[in-house]
Amino acid sequence: MVRQEQPRAQSPGGFRQTVRLFTSSSDMATEGTEIAEETEQMIDQKEPENPVSAVVDSKEMRAVVLTGFGGLNKLKVTKKPMPEPQEGEVKIRVKACGLNFLDLMVRQGNIDNPPKTPLVPGFECSGIVESVGENTKGFEIGDRVMAFVNYNAWAEVVCSPLDFVFKIPDDMTFPEAAAFSLNFVAAYMMLFEVANLREGMSVLVHSAGGGVGQAVAQLCSTVPNVTVFGTASPFKHEAIKHSVTHLFDRNLDYVPEVKKISPEGVDIVLDCLCGENTGKSLTLLKPMGTYILYGSSNMVTGETKSFFSFAKSWWQVEKVNPIKLYEENKVMAGFSLLNLLFKQGGCRQVQTAVQKLLSLYEQKKIKPVVDSLWALEEVKEAMQRIHDRGNIGKLILDVEKSPTPLMANDSTETSEAGEEEEEQEGDNDNKERMPFIQ
Amino acid sequence: MVRQEQPRAQSPGGFRQTVRLFTSSSDMATEGTEIAEETEQMIDQKEPENPVSAVVDSKEMRAVVLTGFGGLNKLKVTKKPMPEPQEGEVKIRVKACGLNFLDLMVRQGNIDNPPKTPLVPGFECSGIVESVGENTKGFEIGDRVMAFVNYNAWAEVVCSPLDFVFKIPDDMTFPEAAAFSLNFVAAYMMLFEVANLREGMSVLVHSAGGGVGQAVAQLCSTVPNVTVFGTASPFKHEAIKHSVTHLFDRNLDYVPEVKKISPEGVDIVLDCLCGENTGKSLTLLKPMGTYILYGSSNMVTGETKSFFSFAKSWWQVEKVNPIKLYEENKVMAGFSLLNLLFKQGGCRQVQTAVQKLLSLYEQKKIKPVVDSLWALEEVKEAMQRIHDRGNIGKLILDVEKSPTPLMANDSTETSEAGEEEEEQEGDNDNKERMPFIQ
Repeated sequence: MVRQEQPRAQSPGGFRQTVRLFTSSSDMATEGTEIAEETEQMIDQKEPENPVSAVVDSKEMRAVVLTGFGGLNKLKVTKKPMPEPQEGEVKIRVKACGLNFLDLMVRQGNIDNPPKTPLVPGFECSGIVESVGENTKGFEIGDRVMAFVNYNAWAEVVCSPLDFVFKIPDDMTFPEAAAFSLNFVAAYMMLFEVANLREGMSVLVHSAGGGVGQAVAQLCSTVPNVTVFGTASPFKHEAIKHSVTHLFDRNLDYVPEVKKISPEGVDIVLDCLCGENTGKSLTLLKPMGTYILYGSSNMVTGETKSFFSFAKSWWQVEKVNPIKLYEENKVMAGFSLLNLLFKQGGCRQVQTAVQKLLSLYEQKKIKPVVDSLWALEEVKEAMQRIHDRGNIGKLILDVEKSPTPLMANDSTETSEAGEEEEEQEGDNDNKERMPFIQ
Repeated sequence: MVRQEQPRAQSPGGFRQTVRLFTSSSDMATEGTEIAEETEQMIDQKEPENPVSAVVDSKEMRAVVLTGFGGLNKLKVTKKPMPEPQEGEVKIRVKACGLNFLDLMVRQGNIDNPPKTPLVPGFECSGIVESVGENTKGFEIGDRVMAFVNYNAWAEVVCSPLDFVFKIPDDMTFPEAAAFSLNFVAAYMMLFEVANLREGMSVLVHSAGGGVGQAVAQLCSTVPNVTVFGTASPFKHEAIKHSVTHLFDRNLDYVPEVKKISPEGVDIVLDCLCGENTGKSLTLLKPMGTYILYGSSNMVTGETKSFFSFAKSWWQVEKVNPIKLYEENKVMAGFSLLNLLFKQGGCRQVQTAVQKLLSLYEQKKIKPVVDSLWALEEVKEAMQRIHDRGNIGKLILDVEKSPTPLMANDSTETSEAGEEEEEQEGDNDNKERMPFIQ
């Protein structure tokens, strides 16, 4: 118990209670010191009822740490020093984090120029602004936000430059927000900025049941008369059949299946598989069609780094002659939202896309699909589930969730903090957690 | 004099006079037989005044013929049988034809799967509808039109399926129309359909003084705040400096020149050069930028087929790994309007583009730039001029023009038909014919 040592202007742990006060009393939200006093009084009152929140040391936070590249056993939940916002940064008390296939590839070290371990994985989160650094205009303590983060998302607290942080609508839940950021922005930018989706076009998307796949399907439905061809494991077909026009078994060759329905091919292929799919997809494109490579999940074949490592796959992917594109009137593109954000200074383009997407959300034209919620301590099971492609929609790490008793055999430094999970709010009430082994 | 043999429903030669009647008497235009009778009477009256029109045998027409692949000496003007429109076709009395760099490559046989010779070159023309085949709705005799043709454009008469024929505005001259079709449609589709040009973007275009280059510059000016980087021979800079933002000498390496002004690169590169430019252009692209290959003029180095034939250039062009595009967030595309039209069934997309372009023309936002007008018999000189990149805007073959006395030393079967050229109408009045050897 170190609360006495913390500066008064800094929000303490047990933020879940604090938040509720802020959101119901917005006129207080700008007055940092008073809020901190209020919060402390609240925590004191709450402490007997909710000891977990109170025991969090405000100099430390829980985080998922990848201790080295490899299998699931390289993931641990541990305590890390509490980050503080630098100039231009926003400090976020994280509520939910998105788990992506890319996180699995990071775990394996199956990416180009992997960073050094140990590291905290995770590229997106949602939560509440807890404090802001100097010169950080536009955000106030208590704001509900989502953020893109260049690693470090899977933690209780994240600090992010303000360019990567976005306020979310009042009726968007935190899991929805964490499911929204990368998947919908990627889907939007690919469909509307790279490929120029218009009325009457057709789109092929792999992993139609996944986070990007479901975002693509929803965004396609905002344009009249768009045909969506999707591939997915057969067990998902019943659940997602209404979101796409034609569904194929992902184990079959989709090229003849698509050609049976549309002999002239499709206008847009979104490929997250890579490998032989590049050539197949280019074949399947109509003239003036666009192929976009946005992932390489085919490189992942087992729990640890695949034989087809990143470097090898580079040479095994079919290279394309621009003269072939000229003769066939085709477009070949690659899209990496994380590179755009964190290596290429593409914030502004992403901000424009986010604003358009939030507008579509508020018009109720799109809604992120959350597959399941997992405690930080359950990250291994969650990752196994995405590896097995068992998810329909997005896997979310719910920072405040405790492991379900069934799963709570994971030894971490913070596992003693486990408690029964509060009931989920909003749309996630009726989400059943699906079994993680099919 | 064979007029007696011709069917009455078919318009005879001397159409220039006939047209003037049709366009001033549109209520007659649907009545084919009556018009034919009227026309014959008119010709009879006109004959003494204009013997050249009358001597044209309606069973034959003048055309430029490529007798074999090779140098300029493979081009002849000769008489060919008069084509008649099949079902769904429009017969056009040609007034003007566009001459493109591609025609030069065709002459050399420097294209993929060249057709058999002898052939009549030319892919675009403008003129007046002389008759229509069965089931050819939407066109009437006397309509002023432009057409895309799969060869055979460089002739006095062209028959084309109606999907490739477009009515032109009353105030668009025939040379303008022939300068408009391929260049503006290609520029439009590349900028707005492949590359998604929007406010604030930057575009690099080579051969900025050429037909496509000038179309690109004009279309870019219809979007706010677009920066156009162009390369051109220094002698053209004064003439075209107002059409682009920054002009570079085409003999210099444009990459450092562009980077001096825009270190982060450009959004769109339009490449008609091919070869080493693919790699250089991809380097110059901003993230989310688009490279479009739409020609390969670098393959042409001399008058006859270059050492770098099409087949060889295929292997010498740098092939691109889609993973590189993924990492760099780049788009690589190829665009061939002729393949889209004549091999890939892309009429409908082209029709949409033409309608949008004609609307821009009528709003006076775009206007084709005609470099110079040439008689059919002057095709060699015209081709030399485009080979030498001497043109600013489009080279036009004016079917009714006679060779200027200086040039009229070319022996062809129809050279005896030469007469002094009438004064050019409209915008071309003040076009000086530029010397064809710089």
